[in-house]
Amino acid sequence: MANRAAVLVKPGEIVIEERPMPEPGPREVLVEVAAVGVCGSDVHYFQHGRVGSHVVRAPLVLGHESAGRVAAVGSSVTAHAVGDRVALEPGVPCGRCRECRSGRYNLCPDVVFFATPPVDGAFAEFVTIDEDFAFALPDELSDEAGALMEPLSVGIWACRKAGVSAGDRVLVTGAGPIGLLAMQVARAFGATRVEISDVNEGRLELAERTGATRAIRAGGEEPGEADVLIECSGHPAALAEGIAALRPAGTAVLVGMGPGQTGELPLALIQSRELWLTGTFRYANTYPTAIELAARGRVDLEAIVTGHFGLADTERALRASLEDPSSVKAIVHPGGWA
Amino acid sequence: MANRAAVLVKPGEIVIEERPMPEPGPREVLVEVAAVGVCGSDVHYFQHGRVGSHVVRAPLVLGHESAGRVAAVGSSVTAHAVGDRVALEPGVPCGRCRECRSGRYNLCPDVVFFATPPVDGAFAEFVTIDEDFAFALPDELSDEAGALMEPLSVGIWACRKAGVSAGDRVLVTGAGPIGLLAMQVARAFGATRVEISDVNEGRLELAERTGATRAIRAGGEEPGEADVLIECSGHPAALAEGIAALRPAGTAVLVGMGPGQTGELPLALIQSRELWLTGTFRYANTYPTAIELAARGRVDLEAIVTGHFGLADTERALRASLEDPSSVKAIVHPGGWA
Amino acid sequence: MANRAAVLVKPGEIVIEERPMPEPGPREVLVEVAAVGVCGSDVHYFQHGRVGSHVVRAPLVLGHESAGRVAAVGSSVTAHAVGDRVALEPGVPCGRCRECRSGRYNLCPDVVFFATPPVDGAFAEFVTIDEDFAFALPDELSDEAGALMEPLSVGIWACRKAGVSAGDRVLVTGAGPIGLLAMQVARAFGATRVEISDVNEGRLELAERTGATRAIRAGGEEPGEADVLIECSGHPAALAEGIAALRPAGTAVLVGMGPGQTGELPLALIQSRELWLTGTFRYANTYPTAIELAARGRVDLEAIVTGHFGLADTERALRASLEDPSSVKAIVHPGGWA
Amino acid sequence: MANRAAVLVKPGEIVIEERPMPEPGPREVLVEVAAVGVCGSDVHYFQHGRVGSHVVRAPLVLGHESAGRVAAVGSSVTAHAVGDRVALEPGVPCGRCRECRSGRYNLCPDVVFFATPPVDGAFAEFVTIDEDFAFALPDELSDEAGALMEPLSVGIWACRKAGVSAGDRVLVTGAGPIGLLAMQVARAFGATRVEISDVNEGRLELAERTGATRAIRAGGEEPGEADVLIECSGHPAALAEGIAALRPAGTAVLVGMGPGQTGELPLALIQSRELWLTGTFRYANTYPTAIELAARGRVDLEAIVTGHFGLADTERALRASLEDPSSVKAIVHPGGWA
Repeated sequence: MANRAAVLVKPGEIVIEERPMPEPGPREVLVEVAAVGVCGSDVHYFQHGRVGSHVVRAPLVLGHESAGRVAAVGSSVTAHAVGDRVALEPGVPCGRCRECRSGRYNLCPDVVFFATPPVDGAFAEFVTIDEDFAFALPDELSDEAGALMEPLSVGIWACRKAGVSAGDRVLVTGAGPIGLLAMQVARAFGATRVEISDVNEGRLELAERTGATRAIRAGGEEPGEADVLIECSGHPAALAEGIAALRPAGTAVLVGMGPGQTGELPLALIQSRELWLTGTFRYANTYPTAIELAARGRVDLEAIVTGHFGLADTERALRASLEDPSSVKAIVHPGGWA
Repeated sequence: MANRAAVLVKPGEIVIEERPMPEPGPREVLVEVAAVGVCGSDVHYFQHGRVGSHVVRAPLVLGHESAGRVAAVGSSVTAHAVGDRVALEPGVPCGRCRECRSGRYNLCPDVVFFATPPVDGAFAEFVTIDEDFAFALPDELSDEAGALMEPLSVGIWACRKAGVSAGDRVLVTGAGPIGLLAMQVARAFGATRVEISDVNEGRLELAERTGATRAIRAGGEEPGEADVLIECSGHPAALAEGIAALRPAGTAVLVGMGPGQTGELPLALIQSRELWLTGTFRYANTYPTAIELAARGRVDLEAIVTGHFGLADTERALRASLEDPSSVKAIVHPGGWA
Repeated sequence: MANRAAVLVKPGEIVIEERPMPEPGPREVLVEVAAVGVCGSDVHYFQHGRVGSHVVRAPLVLGHESAGRVAAVGSSVTAHAVGDRVALEPGVPCGRCRECRSGRYNLCPDVVFFATPPVDGAFAEFVTIDEDFAFALPDELSDEAGALMEPLSVGIWACRKAGVSAGDRVLVTGAGPIGLLAMQVARAFGATRVEISDVNEGRLELAERTGATRAIRAGGEEPGEADVLIECSGHPAALAEGIAALRPAGTAVLVGMGPGQTGELPLALIQSRELWLTGTFRYANTYPTAIELAARGRVDLEAIVTGHFGLADTERALRASLEDPSSVKAIVHPGGWA
Repeated sequence: MANRAAVLVKPGEIVIEERPMPEPGPREVLVEVAAVGVCGSDVHYFQHGRVGSHVVRAPLVLGHESAGRVAAVGSSVTAHAVGDRVALEPGVPCGRCRECRSGRYNLCPDVVFFATPPVDGAFAEFVTIDEDFAFALPDELSDEAGALMEPLSVGIWACRKAGVSAGDRVLVTGAGPIGLLAMQVARAFGATRVEISDVNEGRLELAERTGATRAIRAGGEEPGEADVLIECSGHPAALAEGIAALRPAGTAVLVGMGPGQTGELPLALIQSRELWLTGTFRYANTYPTAIELAARGRVDLEAIVTGHFGLADTERALRASLEDPSSVKAIVHPGGWA
């Protein structure tokens, strides 16, 4: 039996290929993929063939925000049964190294992560994954919501690192999919004032519809004092302005990746206000929380979905976020989208 | 000008007296009290003339959950002006000792706290307080909501100590006013599963109406696994059962005071699961958060108010919680309640 | 080739048996055991055939404090080579469950732990262990010091949980091997005042020789105010007295296991002082720290060693701590002790 | 009675003046100053008449590292008596604002800090200070050690912010007085590997004599992997190199102030390794710890003292660190130095 996949064969070109059906290892499950979100990194690989030091050197299946249905299980699997609906955490760490043992498995140097060369991702009819990194999806959640557990995890991780708590004032810079979800997550963590900045009016309106207490036109208006900055734009100016808005002892978390390896920071301010700054790299132990928040209605994932595509249209889905300013989050349905 | 006050003259007897109008010190404000919540400790002082080692040895004005309007300001006051509506944090610490300097001002040995002998409380037409412990009330909040910033603070402090965060499962034992508010606060901190136990059916129904995801009849049903226990009942059995429900590395916070100085705890469980246990004593730095949560609609304070009384009826208000099982939170309005 | 082991065949009786040489799995190393410390739990199994709910139902090799030399390596081993001297962390967790992924692998329900029925321990000439749980021993450390990385880890874990830091005042109750090491560890964490209590004069003298700033005769003298209590005696009275010595917001860590499942605690004090209480169950991520502290001379492990025994004398080693009040830590040398 | 003081009258010129004897307020003590350390900020004010946004606009007494003897007490003082030897914490915060109440009194916007314009400092025979900010000096500590509680506090604060703990590897960049003390403090917090970098050979040798496990010639040798970076040089290159040495999830603390308001940071590294970065501004709640560490011999303060001066020679003391590369810490003795 064959497994159709959308393969990046060179920058700007996706080809649908038939590949052998993957076989789950003893502790793996085979998942029939139902929905895959298009992430900015997928688009970046598609356009440039690389993200930072990760270079695509051979045909690669993109896609790492996915959910589906268990189609087969390995010989030792106990966590899932055929037919279970699952969301897939796309990085499987070694479980043995210093980082893994310390609970920071997102920093495991040996992690195997979907759609990071040379590991194939989820724009395919079927994928296999370690059973422990497939999470049961409750009935309240659609397949596409299941796929969005991944970017939701990014927001959760940012809010955890920032220590967002009830009554906090959070500034999110950048209203792309990650910023929009981080904003919603901050509210779910109890933040009562959540300001979000961007240059895209449509995204700011979406932010307001989904709970932002203030939308800021970047470059013009000034943010209010904030306890936490979640930087999702990758713009150096947004970072500097956001840090300047922090109260003494406030925390800035870098989520968006900027254009370069380095950036100019207001060190004197960091010192005189004793600010904290950190960055996020993926996430750890977030999927159970993500599923809870979504299933209990604390976040609205459907609100950011702006397009649905079949597997054959994966390239169109990738191009949407490049070419259509109203596109926020495109979803690919490898099993078909009528 | 006189200041009418409801004075506890002996256990079980409240007398309305005319006292001299208090004069604010240089950094104090004079507040015309608009609403005062009746707390379990007020009722306990009323009934027994003591709470633990605090003994009423002279006539005492009870009441420490209060809000009102600034009627005059001391010579150096800068934070408030006459006419401002304010909620009063009833304990003013020394600001100098080891505990104060460490940010734990609730543990200040020299704190001056309303309605704790020999310090008079707020069942009176006017009180004075340090300007820094009066907090501006936004228009969204009623006087009685302002008064309830105090028990709301107890819930916030418990959730902070427990580290309640998004997606957590919280068990609250005891559905009195504090337990009911702690339950709501846990939700505002992002908890998605909040179970609450009690023997009083009416209170459990109220809990469900205000957001509890499960109401547990104490003594019969078993709680599910919880990340956090907030013990508000003071019952040893509730504490033991609640601790047994905690996941490994979970946290138990004691809020309700039990009958004795000591209690039997499941030490072997605390060790083998590495549980954390602590207690709360009042709160610190909670009023801004309390006002935010209430003003933004994250908690519903009116839902627990079950009675309104004029100052002359303070004794009736105190007796309500002793004699009427349907009473949850009584409010005294020293300026009158039509 | 045979592997001689000291086997507990029934309570009070150890027999030396020849067993088949163990074969290391692909990621395991075979270790020729050079030194094994006798722990209180070994003695308890020896005497009673059980520790709490862990019951010895079949012949069992005791001993979980061990070090030795790598004698062979599995096919995939990369961390060690034949001839390496290593200290063995005796519990190998699953690396996959919620606890493992959160960095709390000591709470892994599927841990395989030496000398906990039905898993054999290290009173044997050879044992196998996962390569990641064998830690390279630097030349500065003797075999017996290597074996004592295990109880040293218990002290490190207690100090970490308590947050012991520079300038702290630490009270250790109980001057057995664990208490004596926890006391030294507290000093290595920067504690400047370390009081230790016991009834055994010899142990108190040893405590003073190894850095205790005050030795307290239990039952008579009172401890000074402490930031941290590390309870290593298992005595309910010591626990209650130790908690009473804590400053506001201080922390008590239970290390010693008491006689029963439950214990009486001063709950009113825990509340009014907002004390923290927790327990320790083994340790996680401590071996690198333990090796550093010992190799850099921050702790003196040889000071607590009071006896050396060959494998044939394992029973005598176990009986020493039961019968000889001057015995603190006995070491068994399976490869022989001239 | 007159109070002689060394007054900065313009950049580069110190004049000895007779000023009126200060009168302690009700809660203040009058202290006869015995020793004052010369800090880099004193030297910077002396040379440039400003430090950052703090500009000397009127004659100013410098000096904020001081100790002495209580000569008189205000009417309400209870903490000290005439004759007590005390070390002075030179910043007295308001005790009322948000920062003070949260335990971050070093960030109090209304702090009154010695030798920060327009507040006079301690290069004088007598000063007054709030009784709570004078700390009893034990007999073990000399006057000059008492004065050095201040820079020692800077090191303690840096180590606390970094969470330095037992077995840690700490990299200190910059071996000036602050770097040298931070290095010693890191050891006192339990760090077992402490590398320190500088270009000054004499200071590196001093570092090695006082406990550094490795001295690094800045610009040439590379530091090893570190858990913590304490940046004390103010050099952008040192900061960048130090951050690059951090392990995943490591922490960088900025202590030294660089030449500009902003600086270039390796943001991609901060993100991919999830590093933490913060800065220190003075310190809070460090004096008791500083006194403990020094009195118990955990740090060696005398080792960094390189010169003693009488009050009349204050200018010479200030010039020493500008002109003499072998000078590390100069001490002024306002009461005379034979």
